[in-house]
Amino acid sequence: MVFNILLFPGFETLDVFGPVEIFGKVEGSTIRYYSETGGLIRNTDNIEIKTDPIESLTPEETDILLIPGGTGTRKEIDNPVFIEKISTLAGSSQYTLTVCTGSALLAKTGLLDGRSATSNKRAFGWVESASSKVNWIKQARWVKDGKYYTSSGVSAGMDMALGFIRDTLGTEEARKIAFRIEYNWQEDESTDNFCNQQIK
Amino acid sequence: MVFNILLFPGFETLDVFGPVEIFGKVEGSTIRYYSETGGLIRNTDNIEIKTDPIESLTPEETDILLIPGGTGTRKEIDNPVFIEKISTLAGSSQYTLTVCTGSALLAKTGLLDGRSATSNKRAFGWVESASSKVNWIKQARWVKDGKYYTSSGVSAGMDMALGFIRDTLGTEEARKIAFRIEYNWQEDESTDNFCNQQIK
Repeated sequence: MVFNILLFPGFETLDVFGPVEIFGKVEGSTIRYYSETGGLIRNTDNIEIKTDPIESLTPEETDILLIPGGTGTRKEIDNPVFIEKISTLAGSSQYTLTVCTGSALLAKTGLLDGRSATSNKRAFGWVESASSKVNWIKQARWVKDGKYYTSSGVSAGMDMALGFIRDTLGTEEARKIAFRIEYNWQEDESTDNFCNQQIK
Repeated sequence: MVFNILLFPGFETLDVFGPVEIFGKVEGSTIRYYSETGGLIRNTDNIEIKTDPIESLTPEETDILLIPGGTGTRKEIDNPVFIEKISTLAGSSQYTLTVCTGSALLAKTGLLDGRSATSNKRAFGWVESASSKVNWIKQARWVKDGKYYTSSGVSAGMDMALGFIRDTLGTEEARKIAFRIEYNWQEDESTDNFCNQQIK
């Protein structure tokens, strides 16, 4: 399995590295990091991570694309060059997964139109505004619709990543990875402990 | 709060970025990344992250040190220069937190002697061998002993990081951060779902 991770300034840390931790435990997997310009990409946690330019990526039809969320999505959603690249990559990848507000970027391409999707709870209204043709589901840990997986906020990306492994490699493999990284995996995608709930 | 993250080749992805996601949500926090040589540090998930050389760090007594685990610990435990640096930094920091096999590196300095600590389940025997003078506790999500926090494997680092926030900034702040990142925080450090259990 080849996982292409699409980064931009202001990506959310765990949106990326939660799923990456899981993808890296799939035997023989390859993980690659891309951004619009390539080079070091920084976020609000002071992470500077090396990326290759997106133009150097010609996705195979067996590739898996991951799009994180983060404060940077507010800027990138108005970047037509980046959205066009996402459209091309998501369209040609075997699967496309988004975490948190990453679903807004994917929705902006139109590829989610007529499909069900979710996003994080704190920015749900903003994400919905990216496309009115998406069946936005607020109460869900993650949603799978065809080749598209979208998750709720930040940590939900890990549950979705394991759900993706379950769907593609089987429940045993997903549970094995969760056990190996000592992760209390929420296996049920329809349970959402953060919807319609206030901070205690 | 200033968090100094100590990296080395072969660090475990989530050991670092799980806690970083949480530390970054503390208002006014600063997160910095160091390694023995500085420059780009790589791990098995193909992450290359920029670090400053450890010698450029003169820790304040209010600093917090995080030491992750990962396959790279097997090499670093036999690197006396690195262990000596850990000893200096951990000794002078206000708090030192380790995730997974990071506790083996800390134990090697002798600073955990006479204290209680834990580590991940898959490498527990190896970690124990780093020091026979530590009270190694196998069944624990994380252990706090004085200024030292040690966690179980990989994902346990996030629960510990929130436990650390709870101890220093209060339960409300810790729960607020968990809610914001939609994380199902396991608040009880003594419950360990991965001890004495086989993979399903």
